[in-house]
Parts: sequence; C-alpha cells; structure tokens
Amino acid sequence: MKTLHKLTLLSPDSTEGLKKIDLKQGDWSVKSYTLRGGLQEGVDVVEINNGRLSFAVLPTRGMGIWKGECGDVSLGWNSPVKTPVHPSFINYQDRGGIGWLKGFNEWIVRCGLNNMGAPGTDRDGTALTLHGKIANIPAHSVSLEISDEAIILRGEIDETMMLGPALRLNTEIRTEPGSGKLTISDTVTNIGAAPAEHELLYHINYGESLLEKGSKALAPFKHVAPRDLRAAEGIDSFNVYEDPETGYAEQVYFYQLVEKSGSGGTMVMLKNASGDRASVLRYSLSDFPCFTLWKNTAGKADGYVTGLEPGTNYPNCRPVEREQGRLLSLAGGESRRTALSIEVLESKEAVEDAENEINRLQEQVEGKVHRQPLALFSGN
Amino acid sequence: MKTLHKLTLLSPDSTEGLKKIDLKQGDWSVKSYTLRGGLQEGVDVVEINNGRLSFAVLPTRGMGIWKGECGDVSLGWNSPVKTPVHPSFINYQDRGGIGWLKGFNEWIVRCGLNNMGAPGTDRDGTALTLHGKIANIPAHSVSLEISDEAIILRGEIDETMMLGPALRLNTEIRTEPGSGKLTISDTVTNIGAAPAEHELLYHINYGESLLEKGSKALAPFKHVAPRDLRAAEGIDSFNVYEDPETGYAEQVYFYQLVEKSGSGGTMVMLKNASGDRASVLRYSLSDFPCFTLWKNTAGKADGYVTGLEPGTNYPNCRPVEREQGRLLSLAGGESRRTALSIEVLESKEAVEDAENEINRLQEQVEGKVHRQPLALFSGN
Amino acid sequence: MKTLHKLTLLSPDSTEGLKKIDLKQGDWSVKSYTLRGGLQEGVDVVEINNGRLSFAVLPTRGMGIWKGECGDVSLGWNSPVKTPVHPSFINYQDRGGIGWLKGFNEWIVRCGLNNMGAPGTDRDGTALTLHGKIANIPAHSVSLEISDEAIILRGEIDETMMLGPALRLNTEIRTEPGSGKLTISDTVTNIGAAPAEHELLYHINYGESLLEKGSKALAPFKHVAPRDLRAAEGIDSFNVYEDPETGYAEQVYFYQLVEKSGSGGTMVMLKNASGDRASVLRYSLSDFPCFTLWKNTAGKADGYVTGLEPGTNYPNCRPVEREQGRLLSLAGGESRRTALSIEVLESKEAVEDAENEINRLQEQVEGKVHRQPLALFSGN
Repeated sequence: MKTLHKLTLLSPDSTEGLKKIDLKQGDWSVKSYTLRGGLQEGVDVVEINNGRLSFAVLPTRGMGIWKGECGDVSLGWNSPVKTPVHPSFINYQDRGGIGWLKGFNEWIVRCGLNNMGAPGTDRDGTALTLHGKIANIPAHSVSLEISDEAIILRGEIDETMMLGPALRLNTEIRTEPGSGKLTISDTVTNIGAAPAEHELLYHINYGESLLEKGSKALAPFKHVAPRDLRAAEGIDSFNVYEDPETGYAEQVYFYQLVEKSGSGGTMVMLKNASGDRASVLRYSLSDFPCFTLWKNTAGKADGYVTGLEPGTNYPNCRPVEREQGRLLSLAGGESRRTALSIEVLESKEAVEDAENEINRLQEQVEGKVHRQPLALFSGN
Repeated sequence: MKTLHKLTLLSPDSTEGLKKIDLKQGDWSVKSYTLRGGLQEGVDVVEINNGRLSFAVLPTRGMGIWKGECGDVSLGWNSPVKTPVHPSFINYQDRGGIGWLKGFNEWIVRCGLNNMGAPGTDRDGTALTLHGKIANIPAHSVSLEISDEAIILRGEIDETMMLGPALRLNTEIRTEPGSGKLTISDTVTNIGAAPAEHELLYHINYGESLLEKGSKALAPFKHVAPRDLRAAEGIDSFNVYEDPETGYAEQVYFYQLVEKSGSGGTMVMLKNASGDRASVLRYSLSDFPCFTLWKNTAGKADGYVTGLEPGTNYPNCRPVEREQGRLLSLAGGESRRTALSIEVLESKEAVEDAENEINRLQEQVEGKVHRQPLALFSGN
Repeated sequence: MKTLHKLTLLSPDSTEGLKKIDLKQGDWSVKSYTLRGGLQEGVDVVEINNGRLSFAVLPTRGMGIWKGECGDVSLGWNSPVKTPVHPSFINYQDRGGIGWLKGFNEWIVRCGLNNMGAPGTDRDGTALTLHGKIANIPAHSVSLEISDEAIILRGEIDETMMLGPALRLNTEIRTEPGSGKLTISDTVTNIGAAPAEHELLYHINYGESLLEKGSKALAPFKHVAPRDLRAAEGIDSFNVYEDPETGYAEQVYFYQLVEKSGSGGTMVMLKNASGDRASVLRYSLSDFPCFTLWKNTAGKADGYVTGLEPGTNYPNCRPVEREQGRLLSLAGGESRRTALSIEVLESKEAVEDAENEINRLQEQVEGKVHRQPLALFSGN
C-alpha cells in the first residue's frame, strides 16, 4: 500500500476551521467546503468520489452521510428538510422531544450515543429526546488518508458533559477505488471513569431511486414482529413497498436476524422492483443484534422513504430497552468497535447473487413472522 | 420599467454567505453586511434607502424588519434586547415557552407559520411556544431587484420538519423611490403533501417617536373587545396612549375591522399626539381578518411600545383559534398570498386625510366597543 | 501611570468580530484568537500573560476564565468537556434543566445573573435551569487597556429579554505585571425600569495540581453546614480532600464566613498537601455574603475538582433563597459593583502567612461545624 495523501482537515485546537481541499487523482476526488446561509450556515461537507461511488460526509452533523450516488442509483431521499441543518438550530426538546426531525434528511445518520429511539421520560426523570444527540454534535477532529488502496475519512466527536455520560465516537469511513461499497468502522469509548449507558443505531434511508412500488427489503430472520398495531395492519406485506401515499402513517418492524454460523455476519438488502438495483448492508450480529425496518411510504413531498436500521437494540424509549436487557453499558475507559458495510449492486446478477446468499442464511432457521407486536421486542 | 440591478445575495447552495453590496443610485442606496459579536454574531442585514424611507431587513431573522426611518419619524422601538439576536441563541422553550422574547426588538416581525400567539399545550400534547418559529429561521435564498420603479428584496424561508408541518415563506418587500411606503407581499406554501395548519400575524411595533402621551390608534371596526380583565380596565381609552409607566402590564384589544365595500381594503393608523405624523397600514380583510392592538406603555427602559397586528386569526393559543374556526389549513402544495402596505405620513394634512378615510369606512357600520372580553374572540 | 495600549477588541456595532492581536511587551503578552471546529466553533479567546500569571478569557462564554497557569501551578481542571463550548450548542433545559453542564470546564465561571443554583420550578411556574444564563451569553463589547501598571480587559454582556429581567454585566479583569494575582471587578446593572431579582456566584474550580489527597480548603467561618445528607456523611473531613474515587458523589458545604472587623474583607484558601502551593480568594462579605465549597473528588476522567464559590446567596434553587431573604433585587437603573481577587502562592512561607491570616480572622469567633444540614442554609 502506498500512501498518497495524509491530511488533517480539522484539528481540536483549530483556529482555521475545516481545511478546504479539492484533490483529484485519476478517477477519484475528494473535496471539502462549508455551506453558508439559511439553516445550513456553517455546515462542513467532505465529498468523496471513488470513481464509481460518491458520497458527502457532514463532519458538522456528527459525521453523518448526507447523500450519495452510484451510477444511476441515488443514495438518500427527499426530506421536507431541504438542506443540511446546523446543529445550533436544532432544539431536541421541540414538539415534545422530536426536534431531531428538524434536521433529518441524511442517507446515513447515527442515533445515540447515550440514548436513541423514541422520546420519553427515563426512570430517573430524565427527559429523553428522539434519537439522542450524536447527529447534532460537530466533529472536532477530521482527517483524510488516501492510498492506492482506499480513501479513508476519520472523525472524532464527543458527546460528553460534566456529571453525566462522557462518550466519544471515533469513526472511520473507508471506500476503495472503483467499488460500490463503503465501510463505516466506529469505535465508541467511555472517556469517563464511571460506567455509561450506550445505544447506537444507524438510520440508513432510501427514497427514490431504490424505493418504489414493488421494492423489497430482504433479510434472513428468526423473528419479525410489528412494533405496534399500526405496523400489524401491514404485516402481510411487511417487506414489500407501495407507491407514495399521502397520509400514510409509518410502519415499523423489529427483526431478530440470523447470521452465518461461525463467521458472525449477516446482511440486509433493499432491492428495486425490477430487481436490478439494490443496496446491501453487511455487519455482525455481535455488533448490532437488533434490526429495525422503518417504512414511511408517505406522499413524496412528505418524505417517501424507508430506513434500514441496524442497532445495538431496538429504537424503543430507553427504559424499555433497559428492562429487556438490551441496553449496553460501557465501563470507564471501555471501547466498543463495530463495522458496517454498505454496497450498491447495479445488475440483476449481482442482486440475484445477494438474494441467494440471504436465502442460504435463511435456510438455517425457519423465519417466524409474528402478526402482533411482541412484548419482548416492543415492551408492554 | 427598466431593470437596473438584479442580484442574488444568497443562494440555497451558497458557500459564501450573504453577498456584501453597497449600491448607490441617485437618492437610493442598498447596503448589506453581517453583524458580529455578542448575540448578533452572524446576523445578516440588508439596508434599503429609497431616498425618503429607509429600513433594515434581517434575512437571518426570518426577513423581519429591524428598524426604519422616514424624515424625523423613527420606525421601531427601544427594546431591552439591544441588538438583533441570532436564532441559534434563541431557545423557544425558555421560561415556559416565551424564549421568543429574548430576540424581540424589531419594527416588523412575523409570527407563525405553523403556530403563533400565546404559548400553551395543544390538544395532542404538543408544546406550543410564543409566536412560533418563523422569526428565528434564516432565509436560505435572498435576492434584490432594482428598477427605475422600485427596489424589491425577496427571501425564501423554510419552516419544515420530517413528520410535521412543512411550510415555506416567500416574501417580497417592495418600496418605490421617494415614497414613505413599503409593501410586504408574502406567499406561504405547504410544500408537504399532507395538510398543514397555518397562522400568520405581523407584529408591527412603534415606540417613540410616533408613540407618546396622546397618540391614537385609529381603525374602522364592527367590534372591539378587551382580551382579558386587565385590558377591560382600560376599555374607556383603548385607542389612546399614555406616558411611559413603570410596571404597566400590557393591554390587548381584539378588533373585527370593516373594509371598504367592494374593494376589500381596510386600514389602521397610529398617529402622534399633535396629529402631524402617522403610520398607516393597508391590507385586505380576506388576507388578515383579525386585528389585534397591543398596548405596552411600560417604562421606557422596559420597552415603551405598541403593536399593530394584522393576522389570520387572534394571537390566542392555537387550540382556542382552532375551536373558534379561525385556524387556516393549507392542503398539500397549496399557497396563500397576502399583501400589506405600511406608509409613513409626515404632515397634518396627510394625517387628516387618512383619518377622514377611516371615518368614512366607519360610517358603514356602527362600531361596538365591548367592555368585557368576548368568548368569541378570546375563548373561554 | 502611563497607558501603553488602549484597544477596542469588539464593539457593539461590529461587522468584523473580535480583533485579533498579538502584543508583547517585555515579559507581558496579550493574544486574541477564535477557536474553530467542533463544539468550540466561534469561541473567542483572549490570552493574557503578565510575565508570571497567564490566563485565557472567553468573551463568547460570558467573559469566563477558561484556564490559567502560574509557575508550576495549573489553574483549572480536567472536565469530560474537553474544549470551550459555544453557547449556541447549549440547551439549558437539557436533561431536566442541567444543560449548563455540557459547557462546564472553566477555571472561573459566573453563575447568574437572574438566577443561579439548582434547577427547579419557581413559584410562578418559571422553569429555572442550573446556574442561569450568564456563562452562555457572549460579550458584545470587549476592550483592552495596558499601562505600565496593569493589563485590564473589560467586557459587557446583556442578559435581557422583553417582558422579563434586563440585567447587564460590566466586567473588568485586571492583573499587574509579574504578580500572581488577578482581580475581577463586576458591575451588574438593571437596565430595565422595573425591579429585577439578581443572583451571582463565582464557580472557581481547581483540579490537579492544587487538588490532591491532603489538600485543604481553609476559610474563617462562623458556621459551616452540609448541604444535604450526602455532605453530612463527610462532615468530619469537610475541608480536606481525598484521592480521585470513581463514583464519588459530590459533597457541598455552606459557609457563613467571618471578615476582618472594620475592613470588611475575608479570604478563602485552597492549599496543596505539602503546603507550598495555594490559591487565595479575597473579597468582601458585603459583596458575597455566602460561601459554598463544592467537593467533587470523582474519578480523574469524570472531573476531579473542587469549587470555591463566593456568592450573593447559596446555590439552592431560587425559591429557597427568596424565602430565606437572601435574594437580591435591583431597582430599575440600579447597579451593584463587586470585587474579587485571586492570588496564587508559590512558597511554603507565603502559604503559611496566608494560613496565619485566616487563623487570626478565625480567632474573632468560634467557628461552629454543624453535623447536619441547616434549614437556614438549605431550606426545608
């Protein structure tokens, strides 16, 4: 491996802000800039193009990935929130704890680190807001490494406070030249001395082009159950999508997936109606034991979107997850490293191969589709 | 009409921020700049001077109008909040939902778009904060057009979220060379697919010089009623002003105005004690059926000010307005365009002419002054 | 006295932001810069070095003092919050009103101006958040004066709103060449017309190097009482410190101090275990009648720190202080000026001299250590 560039784009003692670069090398390019005006004032962007797959990372919004493109496949969706929103405009408590939705328009956005999921009140009276803080904390350290093998963007983000949880995220987003794939390797560290609760979920969202009438979400599972009665209504077609429908209320399904025996890997695929385009997630169940499918095929202008959501637990309010024993706790100084890859498939053959792989995983167990919410998954 | 300048000052994909200009043409001038430091850090200003009337628009604060001047008439007031406040410092929920008041010091500020009026809890549990969000959302698009006929500043602002109302404001602020008048033409569009509730009120505020002991607020009305018992105390002089009085608690009056039969236009005037200076609002009742007069002749240092407030409804908490049938709803994609002009009068003759015009409108009906709050206006 | 420099670093009508300077004069230097990236984006810093004592003031965070150094003595502490945090990222209401802790890492930070102390609900329903607002309001005016006698940094900050308290802080931070001392002279003015309640506390915080096993906090007192049962557990060693201990819950002691008869001055000292390094506060009890000692010898990574806290009252929630008659009220236009000096001692002799001085003050009365909370100090 030959290192071509190694650059600090932002350092923790910066008085300059994000370094602006515009690198091109053969088919690759990396560009950085800062958006100005409106709600996007001050949002830094790093655009990475590996020659085939391109995507835009938002250091200012917790190193989320705003949107991407791979051939004719759009990665992302159209939210009523039109631009990236600077965290200083987000008030988590807005509208009863769902202020997070005022900045929600990314392809890939992390939920966590100390809590994620539905808003509510924790057992000690703490007001928990939707999906936690990490998406609205800017990275204080960003660096880029380009070799002849890969482009790697790294970022560090602190979700800390005095007399409360002190969690640090170190993320590494890696893509290889000419591939349709990126890998997110995240390390969450409790930089405090006392133990801290920890939840992490990747909210990976697709609208058009992959989402359309007849699109399917495929995954090998032991159990699938609707989150609530609304989702139960759609259980007969829980993994198939319809056209946009104004007024459609979201349907959410909780999965317990199967992984390849031995290797620990599982996969989830969203494929289009004609089965020649897809996006595939791969990860280990030891990293993310809980998978959630969010169907929100609302009117186009309201956000026609589905979310594939690998998580440390289900996005119920934290007390439910604690009670069910799914809530992680990191000891003082403890780190937890996870990895997740996302690949775009651009041919019928590739999609069929992936589907066969999922089918083989499914053959290990009989998948059970529950018609009603499970207390185990949703709480009571 | 000959176009002299057509400039984009801010575009939605900007990496530069507000374009800084300093144009002069005969008696006119337009200047833009960004305020720095303190709570005004990052607030953009566009100052327009038509040769007679000048005013300063704040794109960063929802295209509100900070202050103006016309001859010896000051347009605006002295708030305890001394500078424009950047929205990122505003916490709507502050002090029980009145955080809006931490940025309140403009001559003209919009309240809305999804809610305005008193804070409280909506029927679905949503916490509603005073006067809504629009004054604290920055425009993402600003442009300027100067012709030999007019100076027009346009701005676009999104008050949107995922899984919630998605309302867009397009405003056009127009003034003609040498006139004492400006016109605000606003279009509010539901850019979502599902219907969205909508409230809009212009909080148009005057302190000294127009406000003084003996100033009067004149308007042709069918009904005037005090908002509450505190306002009822002052009903005998509801449209006359006193000197500043430390500790004075605000008095608010709700009006049902009369308009010119056929044309649909009405008018409201605030005139000074000697009747030789005034500000006149003109608009249509189909745009703004509800008029509110806010009297706050408190101590000078506490904000000696009155507000003339045309609105789609009264600034009660939203459930009251919904119950009374005054709450608007915009269908997906629907737009609503309104217009409002504000003119400064600078002579006894001009003020008398306007007063005569109001009197003629009043002759159409007998105006009824209610001594007690009306359930119809204030709710129960 | 010969004035060498007189500079406006930030003016209230600035379009430039903090003036960047880098002055050196003999052993002194003053430097200003703006931090970028992460949560520190936009935080201005003014570093003052008098040749012996150096410290960094944060105009953006209410003119707090981030950290300092004097010889081998570190002034400040290691918080889990690693960088100065821009106020626009602070949400006071976070986690039930303790959002202030997300920005808490300074050596010296003011709490106030309208409220400080524990979060809670005031008698009129107002939600009070921990330690008030002043630490998260940027100064709008900053100036520097350097003479052959002293370096003086001045700042002005408004904690105001419409229809609410309007308090202005004018601070003057002064240090003399080659001294280990700085003096903070603060004037708080009610710039409104109606009376306003006022609380002010200096949260002056030390971690390593002054804080270690065997460090002591010394002060001449009439009464010391634990805040609560947790503090009562440690009453036998209320003024002695232990090693860091993960999971240690804070212990807080309320003091009524004694001052030199006639002069009105008192003093508090934190000295290290070997008694050759210390920090001494000096002030008048008429300025700050209430002293609070905060012991938080938690795990190093959680913030091993103690706070010496002179205040206008104790940091209980405001209703308690109002009930006990300790809450100040400023009439419209009224100002209150206070002074506080902080000196670093760097030899056994200097520390012993200061200890003797404290002992002489103590000789005036018999100090009473209460083993249980006093209703008078803590409320019921």
